[in-house]
Amino acid sequence: MSLLVVGSVALDTVETPFGKVEDCLGGSATYFSTAASFYTPVKLVAVVGQDFPTHHLEFLKERQVDLAGLQVADGRTFRWSGYYEYDLNTAHTRDTQLNVFASFHPALPEGYRDCPFVFLANIDPDLQMEVLKQVRRPRLVALDTMNYWIENKRESLTGAISMVDLVVMNEAEVREFGGSPSLIKAARRILGLGPQFLVIKKGEDGAVMVTPSAYSVAPAYPLEEVRDPTGAGDTFAGGLMGYLARCGEPTLAALRMGMVHGSVLASFTVEDFSLERLKTLTRSQIGERVEEVKSFNCFEEE
Amino acid sequence: MSLLVVGSVALDTVETPFGKVEDCLGGSATYFSTAASFYTPVKLVAVVGQDFPTHHLEFLKERQVDLAGLQVADGRTFRWSGYYEYDLNTAHTRDTQLNVFASFHPALPEGYRDCPFVFLANIDPDLQMEVLKQVRRPRLVALDTMNYWIENKRESLTGAISMVDLVVMNEAEVREFGGSPSLIKAARRILGLGPQFLVIKKGEDGAVMVTPSAYSVAPAYPLEEVRDPTGAGDTFAGGLMGYLARCGEPTLAALRMGMVHGSVLASFTVEDFSLERLKTLTRSQIGERVEEVKSFNCFEEE
Repeated sequence: MSLLVVGSVALDTVETPFGKVEDCLGGSATYFSTAASFYTPVKLVAVVGQDFPTHHLEFLKERQVDLAGLQVADGRTFRWSGYYEYDLNTAHTRDTQLNVFASFHPALPEGYRDCPFVFLANIDPDLQMEVLKQVRRPRLVALDTMNYWIENKRESLTGAISMVDLVVMNEAEVREFGGSPSLIKAARRILGLGPQFLVIKKGEDGAVMVTPSAYSVAPAYPLEEVRDPTGAGDTFAGGLMGYLARCGEPTLAALRMGMVHGSVLASFTVEDFSLERLKTLTRSQIGERVEEVKSFNCFEEE
Repeated sequence: MSLLVVGSVALDTVETPFGKVEDCLGGSATYFSTAASFYTPVKLVAVVGQDFPTHHLEFLKERQVDLAGLQVADGRTFRWSGYYEYDLNTAHTRDTQLNVFASFHPALPEGYRDCPFVFLANIDPDLQMEVLKQVRRPRLVALDTMNYWIENKRESLTGAISMVDLVVMNEAEVREFGGSPSLIKAARRILGLGPQFLVIKKGEDGAVMVTPSAYSVAPAYPLEEVRDPTGAGDTFAGGLMGYLARCGEPTLAALRMGMVHGSVLASFTVEDFSLERLKTLTRSQIGERVEEVKSFNCFEEE
């Protein structure tokens, strides 16, 4: 089943202890679509400027990502510049230039409005709400966010969260939005707003899912070397939602295996800068790591 | 099969955002023995002073912990005083009084020397070596340590690690001793010294085990409230080693399920101060949580 994503397409400048890249392909919707495209057709809604390199568009088209919803606006593409130190869990922002993103309003082509699976990547919650007004009876809507919106648009964000089925956040965001140092307490407060599922991203500790009646744990794939963690969270969400859309029904079992697939996809993304590793990734490589992760299972009684 | 532990028996003064206790029962060997006693008979080697309250000894005896190896020396019992802030992962030490521990040398009663399972809790690695010289052909020897020994007795510690089968450390200790920000790289270096198994404690993110050929992940049991994390790591080790000793053979499957049992035991310890929660714990309560943790399993394909 098809999957709609609304988010950013960006040009990133990233420095880590392992190298530096300038104006490379980035953005939440880019990582998400590329990851999800291994599982299902993806329809993308975003905006780029006149300066956006066409070979990046060609790459997305080759991945069968539908770009009918990608606006090309006058001006420069959204840019993010940041760096990581040896603690690769924390991104330090050097510069954010909204550029064409500053006046962006998502407009869904008619053919997008019946998409059964919808992902609202990390953008202004008011824009996330604009998307929700344009979709018709989706089977599952998921939402990601970030500390900036929690701190500056809490009311809009609370409204958006109350209208979706699945929330994807990292640990710190759950604690901050849920208002408790206890992750589980904070998680219960978020579920209290309406969503059925909360997936908490924990970086190299994997991911957990909390629902009103179940708790699930997906391990991360352990890597000796991480070169650039940019896009790991969006890739995770892309693997999770892509897998769900392929399954067709968002059952608990599908969500659980989806988290494993999301973790595996993210483990590839962080092996290199930008989307370089995803560009050469194959389905069989994904399958091999999924099988490996299954072998980490501790639940066999003696 | 019986299980020998050498470590500390202490009187702790602990403050957390949820309360304070003074001179309560503590010490690595105490938490370890109590946890392990749910699975197997435990023989304890440690030292206390003349001031050690006899009702604590009675408690350990009731738990079938063999105290023949517990020395009662002239002087005061080892005391630790510390506090935790809302980030309960980090213990802040206010005061450490070694007292009778300063001149402690472990002396194994003859009946202890053939114990098949041996745990060297966090003490001076020179004392851990003294124990290794007194045991005869154990089936599995495990060792715990802390940053103090890594920084001040690295050579002795390296020697001790090279002589054991299983190392139990927390994440920060693995990175510090293994000398890499990459947990997996650091883990491989530790395994390179000789041990077959490295179990890495990750607090509320559970535990992972790294061996030369396998990787395993045990989730933590999620709690809404943690009152006092003191002793969680020693309790985890006690559950793990107790389970292994009950199984009799340290197979990979036994180690994996042992990690789950260790996590579950630790989840009880942190619910209250000192060993209060372990005092009222029953085997069926342990079994219920183990079953719950098994239900967190993400590895069912659609």
